[in-house]
Amino acid sequence: MSAPSSGRTSGQSPADALIVQEIAPRDGLQIEPVWVPTDRKVALIDGLSDAGFRRIEAGSFVSPKAIPMLRDGEEVFARIRRRPGCVYVALVPNLRGAERAVAAGVDELNLVVSASESHNTANMRMRCDASFDAFAAIADTVADTRALLNGTIATAFGCPFEGDVATGRVVSFAERYLALGATGITLADTTGMANPRQVRDLTAAILRLVPAAGLTLHFHNTRGLGLANVLAGYEAGARRFDASLGGLGGCPFAPGATGNICTEDLVHMAHAMGIATGIDLDRLIALSRGLPELLGHDVPGQVAKAGCAWDLHPQPVCR
Amino acid sequence: MSAPSSGRTSGQSPADALIVQEIAPRDGLQIEPVWVPTDRKVALIDGLSDAGFRRIEAGSFVSPKAIPMLRDGEEVFARIRRRPGCVYVALVPNLRGAERAVAAGVDELNLVVSASESHNTANMRMRCDASFDAFAAIADTVADTRALLNGTIATAFGCPFEGDVATGRVVSFAERYLALGATGITLADTTGMANPRQVRDLTAAILRLVPAAGLTLHFHNTRGLGLANVLAGYEAGARRFDASLGGLGGCPFAPGATGNICTEDLVHMAHAMGIATGIDLDRLIALSRGLPELLGHDVPGQVAKAGCAWDLHPQPVCR
Repeated sequence: MSAPSSGRTSGQSPADALIVQEIAPRDGLQIEPVWVPTDRKVALIDGLSDAGFRRIEAGSFVSPKAIPMLRDGEEVFARIRRRPGCVYVALVPNLRGAERAVAAGVDELNLVVSASESHNTANMRMRCDASFDAFAAIADTVADTRALLNGTIATAFGCPFEGDVATGRVVSFAERYLALGATGITLADTTGMANPRQVRDLTAAILRLVPAAGLTLHFHNTRGLGLANVLAGYEAGARRFDASLGGLGGCPFAPGATGNICTEDLVHMAHAMGIATGIDLDRLIALSRGLPELLGHDVPGQVAKAGCAWDLHPQPVCR
Repeated sequence: MSAPSSGRTSGQSPADALIVQEIAPRDGLQIEPVWVPTDRKVALIDGLSDAGFRRIEAGSFVSPKAIPMLRDGEEVFARIRRRPGCVYVALVPNLRGAERAVAAGVDELNLVVSASESHNTANMRMRCDASFDAFAAIADTVADTRALLNGTIATAFGCPFEGDVATGRVVSFAERYLALGATGITLADTTGMANPRQVRDLTAAILRLVPAAGLTLHFHNTRGLGLANVLAGYEAGARRFDASLGGLGGCPFAPGATGNICTEDLVHMAHAMGIATGIDLDRLIALSRGLPELLGHDVPGQVAKAGCAWDLHPQPVCR
């Protein structure tokens, strides 16, 4: 038995709704070792559209040499069914990628800079100021188009090389993105270092700059804190969260460790708490249960294995 | 690099401290299929004592036929080193078990009844009223001894056969335990059905009956909500939580699914948030990393795999 999501989310203010941006087609697939054919990527994204997502990160326009798995970005964007009201996002590392994304009809370009110099150097091979110089050129290119810009701040909750990151630095990076015309800011916990108290404080600081509709929190479950951090962010006023079907991707750096928080686990938590998401959880779980066949390995998500908290089981016969 | 736990928990009021009751030696081991010799059980419990726990559920006095793994309860309690200030608890299902536990010098006897009739019938093969009749006889036996009683209410956050459990019923069961002389109440989320909003409400209801020092919350991570539920309980005033080293036990009912919340993941969350536990996290992680060798399989805990959020890594050399 499975309660419809509406059964637990009635009578709610839209301002309380939790918006999930599904990132499995990009952040999930990019580290998979075995090629997923374009047909199956398109089918996955169409399935996610049908499940009711309002935002899907559907691909990336990076160098095909850097991330071969996502080399078919143009074809994916050309072939997916665009559900009205859903924003289809792509990650873009540079001006060339931005031009390709705009030509492919991407709704929103997602830019990334790390809050820490050492992580940006390791990840993007440039200093943070150089990243923002490149973003300025991208903003110029995008200005005349219908595409929106979202600015992600990686390692916003801590850097694995440097440790703590100053709140003031994260705030100043958000301001620089906004000055370039970004309509959204993402705070990313790139290696799973965030804790609920810190999430509450940083969320409050950034919500002084952007409305809740323009802030996305991106958590990893590396140390088991993924949903606790979502809860803390939600309580502090955040409403938009990245999550990945099945918990795919996000660079888990040990066997058995997890990376991105799992979409169906997040939606399940929200519905159990009476918070609306607009997502059909049953469809979502069915999609997640197809991942092991698609990818050839088990995935970390738990609700697809355990079922929902409101699924009842037959009482065992007393022997 | 690893920050000492005190580094993040200074200047705190003792009332803010989070008390962890370690349950791996009982709830963790009881479902393990391969015998763990008494020597190694004793060494595990002594290691936990040395790590600074103030409460350890060290065994069970159930029928050796029902749970062969815990048939050596007397010997375990006779041989463990009792660290002053630590309460050594045993699970007791009936009067015979209570007599054995008292004779073995157990500090606190833990009794269990399910909030739902169907679950109590499946688990204990009797109705809830019959369980409380048996507890009355146990209370009489214990009254003249130094042993304390703790009353656990299983399925307090929902029953897998019946679904929702009325708050009034959980409250009335707590009152019945207290009337029998119990000094502690445990609310157990036996199959991982709890959600943070419900945890907040039920914790507040029970804290009208018992002080924070007498309430334990027992969560499972079945659907990824374990630490989110701890956070919600802590914010509602609860201070004592069950957890199992490595996330052992707690009847995970699917391969890859988890049961009990993991002690080192919980302690890591607390220390990252600046909440004191009195537990040496480095020792704890070392103990957890010994479990695969002890048990012959991987365990679900994540911090023992990923390391602590404050462990720094060398910056990769830019190629």
